[in-house]
Amino acid sequence: MLPDALRPRVAAAPVARLAMIDGAGLPTAVPICFAVDGDTLYSAVDDKPKRTQRLARLANVAAHPNVTVLVDHYDEDWTALWWARARGVGREVADAAEREQAVDLLRAKYVQYATHALSGPVLAVDVRAWTSWTATRPG
Amino acid sequence: MLPDALRPRVAAAPVARLAMIDGAGLPTAVPICFAVDGDTLYSAVDDKPKRTQRLARLANVAAHPNVTVLVDHYDEDWTALWWARARGVGREVADAAEREQAVDLLRAKYVQYATHALSGPVLAVDVRAWTSWTATRPG
Repeated sequence: MLPDALRPRVAAAPVARLAMIDGAGLPTAVPICFAVDGDTLYSAVDDKPKRTQRLARLANVAAHPNVTVLVDHYDEDWTALWWARARGVGREVADAAEREQAVDLLRAKYVQYATHALSGPVLAVDVRAWTSWTATRPG
Repeated sequence: MLPDALRPRVAAAPVARLAMIDGAGLPTAVPICFAVDGDTLYSAVDDKPKRTQRLARLANVAAHPNVTVLVDHYDEDWTALWWARARGVGREVADAAEREQAVDLLRAKYVQYATHALSGPVLAVDVRAWTSWTATRPG
């Protein structure tokens, strides 16, 4: 379970890291912008420069749906450090209504998306379990 | 290869994320403070509050030495985003001289270690390959 004190911090964190198993069976990770909707985390393949919108992460998640999303906070003051780790199941969002809702959440969180198209795939991670750590007790 | 323009940024980054395969065969990740020495990345299990200094990451790396270290930079200005990803082989440092050198590098990079013991295990990742991405051309 994610402690209540960490929930808003996780939701507000600008970036998370998606850890996956890649096509060679090796662990890999990529930074993602994300939005939280209940127990699901959404991220979009936007139009930032990339080789393709069919990213390796989509193939990874299709082949190995069990993923981990790490949200952590770094601070020069190490008593302020914390992290939260979500284990979950990744999937490309196929439902149009869910996709629209996810895009709305991403646009609401990130002003930067005002100038980015969000026409590419949307990745959902349905969280099954959270673990977390704080350098000092939260709350 | 890591582009020369990214090398000092990677070395100066305060935190990286170590992606591993865990005991259940699932991808996991943990934030690490780290120092760079040539093609090796070092991180220490310091005395920040944890259940034990024999951390899960050490068991993970022993069982699945192929790991990935992700260093990424988030910025409100998305044209300033970049990341670098090191694929490598993890190992607990056994050699006393190498351990001492790693601890010196960590203490030189992090003033915070002045008030933290570094008596625990040191993890090395011998980097085999870098990939990287920048929102705009670096340099």
